[in-house]
Amino acid sequence: MPHMHRFYIPGARFAPGTPVELPEEEAHHALRVVRLREDDTVSLFDGMGANATGLLRVTGKRSASALIETVETEPVPPAEVFMAPAWLHRDKPMEEMVRRGVELGVAGFHFWLARHSQRPLGDAERWLRLAVESCKQCGRSRLPVITLHPSLESLVASAGCPLIAAVPGGMAGAVALPAAPARVALVTGPEGDFSTDELGLLDASGAVRADLGRQILRTEAASIALCTLVLGAYGMMGAQYTAVRE
Amino acid sequence: MPHMHRFYIPGARFAPGTPVELPEEEAHHALRVVRLREDDTVSLFDGMGANATGLLRVTGKRSASALIETVETEPVPPAEVFMAPAWLHRDKPMEEMVRRGVELGVAGFHFWLARHSQRPLGDAERWLRLAVESCKQCGRSRLPVITLHPSLESLVASAGCPLIAAVPGGMAGAVALPAAPARVALVTGPEGDFSTDELGLLDASGAVRADLGRQILRTEAASIALCTLVLGAYGMMGAQYTAVRE
Repeated sequence: MPHMHRFYIPGARFAPGTPVELPEEEAHHALRVVRLREDDTVSLFDGMGANATGLLRVTGKRSASALIETVETEPVPPAEVFMAPAWLHRDKPMEEMVRRGVELGVAGFHFWLARHSQRPLGDAERWLRLAVESCKQCGRSRLPVITLHPSLESLVASAGCPLIAAVPGGMAGAVALPAAPARVALVTGPEGDFSTDELGLLDASGAVRADLGRQILRTEAASIALCTLVLGAYGMMGAQYTAVRE
Repeated sequence: MPHMHRFYIPGARFAPGTPVELPEEEAHHALRVVRLREDDTVSLFDGMGANATGLLRVTGKRSASALIETVETEPVPPAEVFMAPAWLHRDKPMEEMVRRGVELGVAGFHFWLARHSQRPLGDAERWLRLAVESCKQCGRSRLPVITLHPSLESLVASAGCPLIAAVPGGMAGAVALPAAPARVALVTGPEGDFSTDELGLLDASGAVRADLGRQILRTEAASIALCTLVLGAYGMMGAQYTAVRE
Protein backbone atom coordinates (compact mmCIF):
# COMPACT_ATOMS: atom_id res chain seq x y z
CA MET A 1 0.00 0.00 0.00
CA PRO A 2 1.50 3.38 -0.99
CA HIS A 3 1.77 5.95 1.77
CA MET A 4 -1.56 7.65 2.36
CA HIS A 5 -2.16 10.55 4.69
CA ARG A 6 -4.45 9.56 7.47
CA PHE A 7 -7.10 11.71 9.12
CA TYR A 8 -9.04 11.25 12.32
CA ILE A 9 -12.75 12.03 12.09
CA PRO A 10 -14.40 11.26 15.44
CA GLY A 11 -17.98 10.14 15.14
CA ALA A 12 -17.85 9.85 11.36
CA ARG A 13 -20.17 7.45 9.53
CA PHE A 14 -18.32 6.15 6.54
CA ALA A 15 -20.38 4.87 3.57
CA PRO A 16 -19.06 4.36 0.03
CA GLY A 17 -20.09 7.18 -2.30
CA THR A 18 -20.84 9.57 0.57
CA PRO A 19 -18.73 12.60 1.48
CA VAL A 20 -17.42 13.12 5.03
CA GLU A 21 -16.25 16.50 6.18
CA LEU A 22 -12.80 16.80 7.71
CA PRO A 23 -12.63 18.54 11.10
CA GLU A 24 -11.07 22.00 10.90
CA GLU A 25 -7.67 20.98 12.23
CA GLU A 26 -7.48 17.97 9.91
CA ALA A 27 -8.51 20.08 6.91
CA HIS A 28 -5.78 22.57 7.79
CA HIS A 29 -3.26 19.74 7.97
CA ALA A 30 -4.42 18.32 4.63
CA LEU A 31 -4.46 21.60 2.72
CA ARG A 32 -1.73 23.67 4.37
CA VAL A 33 0.76 21.28 5.93
CA VAL A 34 0.95 18.28 3.61
CA ARG A 35 -0.65 20.26 0.70
CA LEU A 36 -2.94 17.61 -0.66
CA ARG A 37 -5.05 18.36 -3.73
CA GLU A 38 -8.45 17.55 -5.13
CA ASP A 39 -8.78 13.81 -5.85
CA ASP A 40 -5.78 12.76 -3.74
CA THR A 41 -6.50 9.47 -2.00
CA VAL A 42 -6.70 9.76 1.77
CA SER A 43 -7.23 7.35 4.63
CA LEU A 44 -9.70 8.12 7.41
CA PHE A 45 -10.60 6.56 10.72
CA ASP A 46 -13.28 7.25 13.29
CA GLY A 47 -11.39 6.12 16.40
CA MET A 48 -13.97 3.36 16.95
CA GLY A 49 -12.53 0.81 14.55
CA ALA A 50 -13.84 2.07 11.21
CA ASN A 51 -11.24 2.76 8.57
CA ALA A 52 -12.01 4.24 5.15
CA THR A 53 -10.29 5.44 2.03
CA GLY A 54 -11.62 8.35 0.04
CA LEU A 55 -10.87 11.04 -2.50
CA LEU A 56 -10.11 14.49 -1.20
CA ARG A 57 -12.56 17.23 -2.10
CA VAL A 58 -11.39 20.78 -1.52
CA THR A 59 -14.57 22.60 -0.44
CA GLY A 60 -13.08 25.94 0.57
CA LYS A 61 -9.88 27.72 1.51
CA ARG A 62 -9.90 26.05 4.89
CA SER A 63 -12.27 23.20 4.44
CA ALA A 64 -12.17 19.82 2.82
CA SER A 65 -14.11 16.61 2.71
CA ALA A 66 -13.45 13.12 1.49
CA LEU A 67 -15.64 11.15 -0.85
CA ILE A 68 -15.62 7.68 0.67
CA GLU A 69 -14.56 4.80 -1.55
CA THR A 70 -13.94 1.81 0.71
CA VAL A 71 -14.82 1.07 4.32
CA GLU A 72 -13.27 -1.56 6.59
CA THR A 73 -13.79 -2.46 10.22
CA GLU A 74 -10.74 -3.27 12.30
CA PRO A 75 -11.23 -6.67 13.96
CA VAL A 76 -12.04 -6.53 17.67
CA PRO A 77 -8.92 -7.72 19.51
CA PRO A 78 -9.26 -10.92 21.58
CA ALA A 79 -8.33 -9.07 24.76
CA GLU A 80 -8.45 -5.54 26.10
CA VAL A 81 -5.06 -5.03 27.68
CA PHE A 82 -4.66 -1.79 29.62
CA MET A 83 -1.33 -0.23 30.47
CA ALA A 84 -1.61 1.16 33.99
CA PRO A 85 1.62 2.92 34.91
CA ALA A 86 2.18 5.36 37.73
CA TRP A 87 2.19 9.02 36.71
CA LEU A 88 5.83 9.89 36.03
CA HIS A 89 7.66 13.12 36.70
CA ARG A 90 8.95 13.51 33.15
CA ASP A 91 7.06 13.67 29.88
CA LYS A 92 9.55 11.73 27.79
CA PRO A 93 8.94 8.29 29.33
CA MET A 94 5.19 9.01 29.37
CA GLU A 95 5.41 9.72 25.66
CA GLU A 96 7.30 6.50 25.04
CA MET A 97 4.62 4.52 26.90
CA VAL A 98 1.77 6.09 24.95
CA ARG A 99 3.43 5.72 21.56
CA ARG A 100 4.55 2.15 22.11
CA GLY A 101 1.33 1.16 23.83
CA VAL A 102 -0.75 2.40 20.91
CA GLU A 103 1.51 0.65 18.41
CA LEU A 104 1.48 -2.62 20.33
CA GLY A 105 -2.30 -2.55 20.56
CA VAL A 106 -3.26 -1.78 24.14
CA ALA A 107 -6.92 -0.90 24.68
CA GLY A 108 -6.05 2.08 26.83
CA PHE A 109 -3.99 3.71 29.53
CA HIS A 110 -4.85 4.14 33.19
CA PHE A 111 -2.35 6.57 34.67
CA TRP A 112 -2.48 6.78 38.44
CA LEU A 113 -0.89 9.12 40.92
CA ALA A 114 1.39 7.08 43.13
CA ARG A 115 2.51 7.88 46.64
CA HIS A 116 5.98 8.28 45.11
CA SER A 117 4.94 10.13 41.96
CA GLN A 118 7.02 13.29 41.81
CA ARG A 119 4.56 15.73 40.25
CA PRO A 120 0.81 16.28 40.34
CA LEU A 121 -1.44 14.65 37.75
CA GLY A 122 -1.62 16.58 34.50
CA ASP A 123 -4.51 16.29 32.09
CA ALA A 124 -5.35 13.52 29.65
CA GLU A 125 -5.76 15.84 26.65
CA ARG A 126 -2.14 15.95 25.48
CA TRP A 127 -1.76 12.19 25.78
CA LEU A 128 -4.93 11.67 23.80
CA ARG A 129 -3.55 13.91 21.05
CA LEU A 130 -0.35 11.88 21.04
CA ALA A 131 -2.42 8.69 20.87
CA VAL A 132 -4.29 10.04 17.82
CA GLU A 133 -0.96 10.81 16.15
CA SER A 134 0.32 7.31 16.95
CA CYS A 135 -2.89 5.74 15.58
CA LYS A 136 -2.29 7.62 12.33
CA GLN A 137 1.25 6.36 12.10
CA CYS A 138 0.69 2.71 12.93
CA GLY A 139 -2.54 2.23 10.99
CA ARG A 140 -4.68 1.63 14.04
CA SER A 141 -8.34 2.70 13.90
CA ARG A 142 -9.48 2.28 17.49
CA LEU A 143 -8.41 5.13 19.72
CA PRO A 144 -7.23 3.96 23.15
CA VAL A 145 -9.03 5.12 26.26
CA ILE A 146 -6.93 7.34 28.53
CA THR A 147 -7.96 7.83 32.14
CA LEU A 148 -6.19 9.52 35.03
CA HIS A 149 -6.63 8.32 38.59
CA PRO A 150 -5.79 10.35 41.69
CA SER A 151 -4.56 7.21 43.48
CA LEU A 152 -4.06 3.49 43.12
CA GLU A 153 -7.27 3.04 45.16
CA SER A 154 -9.16 4.86 42.45
CA LEU A 155 -7.59 2.71 39.74
CA VAL A 156 -8.32 -0.52 41.62
CA ALA A 157 -11.91 0.53 42.29
CA SER A 158 -12.67 1.47 38.70
CA ALA A 159 -10.55 -0.87 36.57
CA GLY A 160 -13.15 -3.61 36.81
CA CYS A 161 -10.76 -6.32 35.68
CA PRO A 162 -7.92 -8.51 36.95
CA LEU A 163 -4.67 -6.66 37.63
CA ILE A 164 -1.13 -7.81 37.06
CA ALA A 165 1.51 -5.68 38.75
CA ALA A 166 5.20 -5.69 37.86
CA VAL A 167 6.90 -6.17 41.21
CA PRO A 168 10.51 -7.36 41.53
CA GLY A 169 10.58 -10.64 43.41
CA GLY A 170 7.00 -11.47 42.33
CA MET A 171 5.87 -14.58 40.45
CA ALA A 172 8.56 -15.85 38.12
CA GLY A 173 6.62 -18.89 36.96
CA ALA A 174 3.44 -19.38 34.96
CA VAL A 175 0.76 -16.70 35.21
CA ALA A 176 -2.62 -17.76 33.83
CA LEU A 177 -4.40 -14.90 32.13
CA PRO A 178 -8.20 -14.74 31.96
CA ALA A 179 -9.51 -16.54 28.86
CA ALA A 180 -10.24 -14.35 25.86
CA PRO A 181 -12.38 -12.32 25.38
CA ALA A 182 -10.84 -10.71 28.42
CA ARG A 183 -9.83 -7.47 29.99
CA VAL A 184 -6.72 -7.07 32.11
CA ALA A 185 -4.77 -4.08 33.47
CA LEU A 186 -0.99 -4.10 33.86
CA VAL A 187 0.21 -1.97 36.73
CA THR A 188 3.71 -0.56 37.08
CA GLY A 189 5.09 1.63 39.85
CA PRO A 190 6.84 5.00 39.70
CA GLU A 191 10.61 5.58 39.81
CA GLY A 192 10.47 5.46 43.61
CA ASP A 193 8.58 2.15 43.46
CA PHE A 194 5.24 1.19 44.99
CA SER A 195 4.74 2.28 48.59
CA THR A 196 4.05 -0.38 51.21
CA ASP A 197 0.39 0.69 51.28
CA GLU A 198 0.13 0.39 47.53
CA LEU A 199 1.60 -3.11 47.58
CA GLY A 200 -0.90 -4.04 50.30
CA LEU A 201 -3.72 -2.64 48.22
CA LEU A 202 -2.60 -4.63 45.19
CA ASP A 203 -2.50 -7.82 47.24
CA ALA A 204 -5.90 -7.11 48.80
CA SER A 205 -7.41 -6.56 45.36
CA GLY A 206 -6.14 -9.94 44.18
CA ALA A 207 -3.55 -8.51 41.80
CA VAL A 208 -0.87 -10.92 40.64
CA ARG A 209 2.62 -9.68 41.47
CA ALA A 210 4.74 -10.61 38.49
CA ASP A 211 8.51 -10.49 38.25
CA LEU A 212 10.06 -9.09 35.07
CA GLY A 213 13.47 -10.75 35.17
CA ARG A 214 16.74 -9.93 36.82
CA GLN A 215 17.50 -6.53 35.38
CA ILE A 216 16.10 -3.33 36.90
CA LEU A 217 13.70 -1.90 34.34
CA ARG A 218 12.61 1.71 34.29
CA THR A 219 8.86 2.24 34.59
CA GLU A 220 8.43 2.86 30.87
CA ALA A 221 10.52 -0.18 29.92
CA ALA A 222 8.67 -2.37 32.42
CA SER A 223 5.26 -1.17 31.21
CA ILE A 224 6.08 -1.76 27.57
CA ALA A 225 7.71 -5.14 28.20
CA LEU A 226 4.81 -6.38 30.33
CA CYS A 227 2.27 -5.27 27.69
CA THR A 228 4.27 -7.00 24.97
CA LEU A 229 4.36 -10.27 26.91
CA VAL A 230 0.65 -10.21 27.76
CA LEU A 231 -0.46 -9.11 24.28
CA GLY A 232 1.80 -11.88 22.96
CA ALA A 233 0.07 -14.44 25.16
CA TYR A 234 -3.28 -13.34 23.69
CA GLY A 235 -1.92 -13.85 20.17
CA MET A 236 -1.90 -10.13 19.41
CA MET A 237 1.81 -9.91 18.62
CA GLY A 238 1.84 -12.20 15.61
CA ALA A 239 4.01 -15.30 16.01
CA GLN A 240 4.17 -17.20 19.30
CA TYR A 241 7.61 -18.23 20.47
CA THR A 242 8.32 -21.38 22.41
CA ALA A 243 11.68 -22.60 23.57
CA VAL A 244 12.56 -25.94 25.07
CA ARG A 245 14.40 -25.04 28.26
CA GLU A 246 16.72 -27.26 30.25
CA MET B 1 19.65 -2.18 48.54
CA PRO B 2 20.38 1.56 48.91
CA HIS B 3 21.47 3.39 45.78
CA MET B 4 25.16 2.78 45.11
CA HIS B 5 27.18 4.42 42.41
CA ARG B 6 28.36 1.88 39.90
CA PHE B 7 31.68 1.86 38.06
CA TYR B 8 32.85 -0.09 35.07
CA ILE B 9 36.35 -1.53 35.34
CA PRO B 10 37.10 -3.59 32.23
CA GLY B 11 39.42 -6.53 32.85
CA ALA B 12 39.32 -6.11 36.63
CA ARG B 13 39.93 -9.08 38.91
CA PHE B 14 37.82 -8.65 41.97
CA ALA B 15 38.94 -10.41 45.17
CA PRO B 16 37.73 -9.54 48.68
CA GLY B 17 40.33 -7.52 50.61
CA THR B 18 42.17 -6.45 47.45
CA PRO B 19 42.11 -2.94 46.00
CA VAL B 20 41.16 -2.31 42.38
CA GLU B 21 42.08 0.94 40.67
CA LEU B 22 39.34 2.93 38.96
CA PRO B 23 40.04 3.92 35.34
CA GLU B 24 40.75 7.65 34.97
CA GLU B 25 37.31 8.56 33.64
CA GLU B 26 35.54 6.60 36.37
CA ALA B 27 37.77 8.13 39.07
CA HIS B 28 36.91 11.57 37.70
CA HIS B 29 33.23 10.71 37.83
CA ALA B 30 33.52 9.39 41.39
CA LEU B 31 35.54 12.29 42.79
CA ARG B 32 34.42 15.29 40.72
CA VAL B 33 30.93 14.54 39.45
CA VAL B 34 29.19 12.58 42.18
CA ARG B 35 31.75 13.68 44.82
CA LEU B 36 32.16 10.44 46.67
CA ARG B 37 34.48 10.29 49.67
CA GLU B 38 36.88 7.90 51.33
CA ASP B 39 35.03 4.80 52.60
CA ASP B 40 31.88 5.36 50.56
CA THR B 41 30.49 2.05 49.37
CA VAL B 42 30.61 1.61 45.61
CA SER B 43 29.52 -1.05 43.18
CA LEU B 44 31.84 -2.25 40.42
CA PHE B 45 31.52 -4.52 37.41
CA ASP B 46 34.00 -5.88 34.89
CA GLY B 47 31.64 -6.17 31.91
CA MET B 48 32.15 -9.96 31.89
CA GLY B 49 29.64 -10.85 34.58
CA ALA B 50 31.60 -10.07 37.75
CA ASN B 51 29.99 -7.65 40.15
CA ALA B 52 31.64 -6.38 43.33
CA THR B 53 31.07 -3.96 46.16
CA GLY B 54 33.92 -2.09 47.74
CA LEU B 55 34.98 0.89 49.81
CA LEU B 56 36.28 3.92 47.97
CA ARG B 57 39.91 4.85 48.57
CA VAL B 58 40.96 8.30 47.41
CA THR B 59 44.53 7.77 46.22
CA GLY B 60 45.20 11.18 44.65
CA LYS B 61 43.54 14.30 43.32
CA ARG B 62 42.41 12.47 40.23
CA SER B 63 42.74 8.86 41.21
CA ALA B 64 40.81 6.43 43.31
CA SER B 65 40.57 2.75 43.97
CA ALA B 66 38.07 0.49 45.67
CA LEU B 67 38.87 -2.00 48.38
CA ILE B 68 36.79 -5.00 47.40
CA GLU B 69 34.38 -6.39 49.97
CA THR B 70 32.06 -8.77 48.17
CA VAL B 71 32.17 -10.41 44.75
CA GLU B 72 29.28 -11.99 42.83
CA THR B 73 29.03 -13.54 39.41
CA GLU B 74 25.96 -12.77 37.34
CA PRO B 75 24.35 -16.06 36.23
CA VAL B 76 24.91 -16.94 32.57
CA PRO B 77 21.58 -16.39 30.78
CA PRO B 78 19.93 -19.47 29.23
CA ALA B 79 20.08 -17.93 25.77
CA GLU B 80 22.12 -15.35 23.93
CA VAL B 81 19.56 -13.23 22.14
CA PHE B 82 20.97 -10.66 19.73
CA MET B 83 19.10 -7.63 18.50
CA ALA B 84 19.95 -7.19 14.81
CA PRO B 85 18.26 -4.06 13.51
CA ALA B 86 19.06 -2.19 10.33
CA TRP B 87 21.18 0.92 10.79
CA LEU B 88 18.74 3.81 11.17
CA HIS B 89 19.02 7.36 9.96
CA ARG B 90 18.37 8.92 13.34
CA ASP B 91 20.17 8.48 16.64
CA LYS B 92 17.11 8.64 18.87
CA PRO B 93 15.59 5.28 17.89
CA MET B 94 19.07 3.71 17.91
CA GLU B 95 19.46 4.97 21.45
CA GLU B 96 16.10 3.53 22.45
CA MET B 97 17.09 0.13 21.05
CA VAL B 98 20.42 0.06 22.87
CA ARG B 99 19.00 1.20 26.20
CA ARG B 100 16.03 -1.13 26.14
CA GLY B 101 18.03 -4.02 24.72
CA VAL B 102 20.58 -3.76 27.53
CA GLU B 103 17.85 -3.52 30.15
CA LEU B 104 15.90 -6.47 28.74
CA GLY B 105 19.04 -8.61 28.69
CA VAL B 106 20.08 -9.06 25.07
CA ALA B 107 23.58 -10.51 24.58
CA GLY B 108 24.46 -7.92 21.97
CA PHE B 109 23.57 -5.83 18.97
CA HIS B 110 24.34 -6.51 15.32
CA PHE B 111 23.61 -3.34 13.39
CA TRP B 112 23.65 -3.80 9.63
CA LEU B 113 23.59 -1.37 6.75
CA ALA B 114 20.43 -2.05 4.76
CA ARG B 115 19.82 -1.27 1.14
CA HIS B 116 17.26 1.24 2.42
CA SER B 117 19.34 2.63 5.31
CA GLN B 118 19.44 6.37 4.90
CA ARG B 119 22.91 7.20 6.20
CA PRO B 120 26.30 5.49 6.20
CA LEU B 121 27.35 3.27 9.09
CA GLY B 122 28.75 5.20 12.05
CA ASP B 123 31.05 3.66 14.60
CA ALA B 124 30.29 1.31 17.45
CA GLU B 125 32.09 3.38 20.09
CA ARG B 126 29.24 5.70 21.05
CA TRP B 127 26.76 2.85 21.31
CA LEU B 128 29.15 0.92 23.49
CA ARG B 129 29.44 3.93 25.79
CA LEU B 130 25.65 4.10 25.97
CA ALA B 131 25.54 0.36 26.70
CA VAL B 132 27.99 0.84 29.60
CA GLU B 133 25.78 3.60 30.98
CA SER B 134 22.69 1.39 30.66
CA CYS B 135 24.49 -1.50 32.39
CA LYS B 136 25.24 0.83 35.29
CA GLN B 137 21.60 1.87 35.55
CA CYS B 138 19.97 -1.52 35.31
CA GLY B 139 22.42 -3.46 37.43
CA ARG B 140 23.69 -5.62 34.61
CA SER B 141 27.31 -6.81 34.76
CA ARG B 142 27.83 -8.34 31.32
CA LEU B 143 28.48 -5.75 28.65
CA PRO B 144 26.68 -6.52 25.39
CA VAL B 145 28.67 -7.08 22.22
CA ILE B 146 28.10 -4.43 19.55
CA THR B 147 29.06 -5.14 15.95
CA LEU B 148 28.43 -3.19 12.76
CA HIS B 149 27.94 -4.95 9.44
CA PRO B 150 28.27 -3.27 6.04
CA SER B 151 25.40 -5.37 4.69
CA LEU B 152 22.86 -8.06 5.55
CA GLU B 153 25.15 -10.56 3.75
CA SER B 154 27.86 -9.75 6.26
CA LEU B 155 25.48 -10.19 9.17
CA VAL B 156 24.15 -13.49 7.84
CA ALA B 157 27.67 -14.79 7.18
CA SER B 158 28.99 -13.94 10.63
CA ALA B 159 26.02 -14.30 12.97
CA GLY B 160 26.59 -18.04 13.28
CA CYS B 161 23.13 -18.69 14.68
CA PRO B 162 19.49 -19.02 13.63
CA LEU B 163 17.85 -15.79 12.53
CA ILE B 164 14.30 -14.61 13.09
CA ALA B 165 13.27 -11.65 10.99
CA ALA B 166 10.28 -9.42 11.69
CA VAL B 167 8.45 -9.33 8.37
CA PRO B 168 4.81 -8.29 8.08
CA GLY B 169 2.79 -11.18 6.70
CA GLY B 170 5.30 -13.72 8.06
CA MET B 171 4.54 -16.61 10.40
CA ALA B 172 1.72 -15.76 12.78
CA GLY B 173 1.63 -19.17 14.45
CA ALA B 174 4.07 -21.08 16.65
CA VAL B 175 7.78 -20.47 16.14
CA ALA B 176 10.02 -23.04 17.80
CA LEU B 177 13.19 -21.49 19.17
CA PRO B 178 16.40 -23.51 19.48
CA ALA B 179 16.59 -25.25 22.86
CA ALA B 180 18.60 -23.45 25.55
CA PRO B 181 21.52 -22.96 25.83
CA ALA B 182 21.03 -21.23 22.51
CA ARG B 183 21.98 -18.25 20.43
CA VAL B 184 19.55 -16.46 18.13
CA ALA B 185 19.58 -13.15 16.27
CA LEU B 186 16.45 -11.06 15.71
CA VAL B 187 16.55 -9.09 12.48
CA THR B 188 14.46 -6.01 11.78
CA GLY B 189 14.46 -3.86 8.65
CA PRO B 190 14.95 -0.13 8.22
CA GLU B 191 12.20 2.49 7.85
CA GLY B 192 12.05 1.76 4.12
CA ASP B 193 11.70 -1.97 4.84
CA PHE B 194 13.84 -4.88 3.63
CA SER B 195 14.71 -4.82 -0.07
CA THR B 196 13.64 -7.76 -2.25
CA ASP B 197 17.25 -8.99 -2.29
CA GLU B 198 17.46 -8.81 1.47
CA LEU B 199 14.25 -10.81 1.86
CA GLY B 200 15.65 -13.39 -0.57
CA LEU B 201 18.86 -13.56 1.41
CA LEU B 202 16.95 -14.07 4.66
CA ASP B 203 14.95 -16.91 3.09
CA ALA B 204 18.08 -18.50 1.60
CA SER B 205 19.78 -18.41 5.00
CA GLY B 206 16.88 -20.24 6.60
CA ALA B 207 15.68 -17.26 8.62
CA VAL B 208 12.16 -17.51 10.01
CA ARG B 209 9.95 -14.65 8.83
CA ALA B 210 7.82 -13.75 11.82
CA ASP B 211 4.82 -11.47 11.87
CA LEU B 212 4.48 -8.99 14.73
CA GLY B 213 0.75 -8.41 14.72
CA ARG B 214 -1.56 -6.13 12.81
CA GLN B 215 -0.16 -2.73 13.69
CA ILE B 216 2.73 -1.17 11.79
CA LEU B 217 5.64 -1.01 14.22
CA ARG B 218 8.58 1.31 13.79
CA THR B 219 11.94 -0.45 13.59
CA GLU B 220 12.83 0.35 17.19
CA ALA B 221 9.42 -0.75 18.47
CA ALA B 222 9.57 -3.96 16.42
CA SER B 223 13.12 -4.76 17.60
CA ILE B 224 12.28 -4.23 21.25
CA ALA B 225 8.99 -6.13 21.04
CA LEU B 226 10.57 -9.10 19.26
CA CYS B 227 13.40 -9.26 21.82
CA THR B 228 10.90 -9.10 24.67
CA LEU B 229 8.88 -11.99 23.24
CA VAL B 230 11.92 -14.18 22.56
CA LEU B 231 13.61 -13.40 25.89
CA GLY B 232 10.25 -14.17 27.49
CA ALA B 233 10.11 -17.55 25.77
CA TYR B 234 13.55 -18.35 27.22
CA GLY B 235 12.29 -17.47 30.71
CA MET B 236 14.44 -14.34 30.90
CA MET B 237 11.56 -11.93 31.48
CA GLY B 238 10.36 -13.32 34.80
CA ALA B 239 6.81 -14.65 34.76
CA GLN B 240 5.44 -16.58 31.77
CA TYR B 241 1.97 -15.65 30.61
CA THR B 242 -0.50 -18.06 29.12
CA ALA B 243 -4.01 -17.31 28.00
CA VAL B 244 -6.70 -19.73 26.95
CA ARG B 245 -7.83 -18.43 23.59
CA GLU B 246 -11.09 -19.19 21.80
